Amino acid sequence: MADTKVYRASTTAPVNIAVVKYWGKRDPKLNLPTNSSLSVTLSQDDLRTLTTASCSSAYKEDTLLLNGSPSDLTGARTQACLRELRSRRAALESNDASLPKLSTMPLLLVSENNFPTAAGLASSAAGFAALVRATADLYELPASPTELSLIARQGSGSACRSLFGGYVAWRHGSQADGLDSKAVEVAPASHWPTMRALILVVSAAKKGVSSTSGMQQTVATSGLFKQRIADVVPANMETMEAAIAAKDFAKFAEVTMRDSNSFHATCADTYPPIFYMNDVSRAAVRAVEAINAAAGRTVAAYTFDAGPNAVIYYLEEDKETILGTFYPLLQDTDGWKDGAKVFKTSVELDEAVAGQLKAGVSRVIMTGVGEGPTKTDVYLVSEEGKPLSTES
Amino acid sequence: MADTKVYRASTTAPVNIAVVKYWGKRDPKLNLPTNSSLSVTLSQDDLRTLTTASCSSAYKEDTLLLNGSPSDLTGARTQACLRELRSRRAALESNDASLPKLSTMPLLLVSENNFPTAAGLASSAAGFAALVRATADLYELPASPTELSLIARQGSGSACRSLFGGYVAWRHGSQADGLDSKAVEVAPASHWPTMRALILVVSAAKKGVSSTSGMQQTVATSGLFKQRIADVVPANMETMEAAIAAKDFAKFAEVTMRDSNSFHATCADTYPPIFYMNDVSRAAVRAVEAINAAAGRTVAAYTFDAGPNAVIYYLEEDKETILGTFYPLLQDTDGWKDGAKVFKTSVELDEAVAGQLKAGVSRVIMTGVGEGPTKTDVYLVSEEGKPLSTES
Repeated sequence: MADTKVYRASTTAPVNIAVVKYWGKRDPKLNLPTNSSLSVTLSQDDLRTLTTASCSSAYKEDTLLLNGSPSDLTGARTQACLRELRSRRAALESNDASLPKLSTMPLLLVSENNFPTAAGLASSAAGFAALVRATADLYELPASPTELSLIARQGSGSACRSLFGGYVAWRHGSQADGLDSKAVEVAPASHWPTMRALILVVSAAKKGVSSTSGMQQTVATSGLFKQRIADVVPANMETMEAAIAAKDFAKFAEVTMRDSNSFHATCADTYPPIFYMNDVSRAAVRAVEAINAAAGRTVAAYTFDAGPNAVIYYLEEDKETILGTFYPLLQDTDGWKDGAKVFKTSVELDEAVAGQLKAGVSRVIMTGVGEGPTKTDVYLVSEEGKPLSTES
Repeated sequence: MADTKVYRASTTAPVNIAVVKYWGKRDPKLNLPTNSSLSVTLSQDDLRTLTTASCSSAYKEDTLLLNGSPSDLTGARTQACLRELRSRRAALESNDASLPKLSTMPLLLVSENNFPTAAGLASSAAGFAALVRATADLYELPASPTELSLIARQGSGSACRSLFGGYVAWRHGSQADGLDSKAVEVAPASHWPTMRALILVVSAAKKGVSSTSGMQQTVATSGLFKQRIADVVPANMETMEAAIAAKDFAKFAEVTMRDSNSFHATCADTYPPIFYMNDVSRAAVRAVEAINAAAGRTVAAYTFDAGPNAVIYYLEEDKETILGTFYPLLQDTDGWKDGAKVFKTSVELDEAVAGQLKAGVSRVIMTGVGEGPTKTDVYLVSEEGKPLSTES
């Protein structure tokens, strides 16, 4: 009789927030970037995607459930990932007849985030990293994270960086086939474990331009973008890697802030202009500047992705200065951990800045540098092949 | 007995709003710019400075009254202008003994704007242009507007463009002495008289960085600024001059909007970043985009100086589309002329955009292209040498 067994593998994957930004594709189909980028992987205790990949000849067709609802699997990017994974599995099967023919079975992929999608945090990076890692585990592929990053990159560019923990670089590469455009670990989380991130979630009046279309508008129309690619980013990558190696926070912070500014400047120089930061985002910039001025040294760094949320990096040893500035001001918003609630006001912010933040920050997320994808025996698919939920 | 006669000359001078922006000095002392710029001179019916320059041996010392209050004359920039003007007068006197020795007499300079300084419109351009033009008239200097632009430039860079009406270029020049960094008329107002400007005055929460210090921070710290100077501005100047020659509004508008975006992008790329535009400014950008989309062609162009105010250029023939969008929305704000009040809503704006504008625009100014400085017999100094006011 036919093998109707349900094969399963589960993994969790992290979110990453770039400190040298990815913005611009040289090849939209393969997701090949115009420039290298570097990110910090955030702790999965606070932000993670859990994905179970399962396959069975009893399944009718490939299916994806995201946070409980059916999701489209037919997109070119998802298909590219599944095609790559299946072909690698098929290669193993053809070399070892004893292996079950998983590559021929329909897949059931079930995925859940432990954070509100409403937060507008780039969940696609964690999502594609988890999908690729879980399916690679299901298929028992002998692939390294860097090899898998080549696959995840085709799903979502920044997803390639979520296959590692700690400090991760995505080398832009130069080959047309993209085989040298992959993620590498710059340093593990254990090298600089005291890196923290406070995320100020800012409710945007309206969703901005999607990053996929936005970055290509920038490539096509910004007169200043060329210099970012030719000079600014290469210099930022070099300085950032040295700062991480030396655990030099002041340098890490300066490059992080300058690169975020440079990225948003090229957005503003796009025609028509793209605005991701709003007045609340700008208030967060002023708040970080005030904190550093009060401290007399650089203890905090802001960075903004393709949205108004502020991600503020700082070191554990300086938490009182940073959390003591924002907790008293924003204590009515969700997301604070007890560790923050002990602090009295450390830095008084300008009234206009404080008012903008109070009015515009809808929740906070306290997290820090963390580990990469982790195999787990928590399954979102039962042994009988039925979708489960961690919430149920 | 000594000559105690009071010598007087009065002139009015206009405001100008650049469509290719001046941002960056290669020589702060001489106000020599890193790039050429181009502006439209606005009508003095709506925005002008009236200045009477007078001198008399009966005066004790050089005095400047601005809008009724004593103002500092000792600043290096004002002193540079007065020194240059006096030395030219002294040269005339030394060649003709019959001329009264005005160059040796103390000056009484009295100046008034016909617009609220609160509006945050660059009044220094009109102010220095009027001061230089009135004093040159007082001294009966045979200097052309371009020659006087060399003097006014040392008072305030953009002031050199306010010595002409119509469409005016400031050539950056290359000489160390700045003698080739001057303003020239690209086209008189009569060449393209239907150019209109609607200014949306936006109340800024707080005054931003002064342009004088801001532009030098940009020169020193922006990684993207070099490309603006090397490539972006030279191309914009060339396209803009061709657009004005051909009265091609669509091209004029595109360069105006792109150059404003490029300028504010280099501000955002400054470290620490400089933000002049706020969420209300950005709403004005979206409104102009919506107007052009609804019209199916480019009928409006936004530009922003070193502040949140939006200046919207359009042609008289398209006034119904532009004024019909903003008047119904902002009819409760001051500054509308009767000509606008006849229009019903022409373009419905997105709710968020409309809300931002309603909440953030404090007044409007309806104006258009206009003439340069004009001699007048309205005096702000009496024949007896007493300060007068047009308001008294």
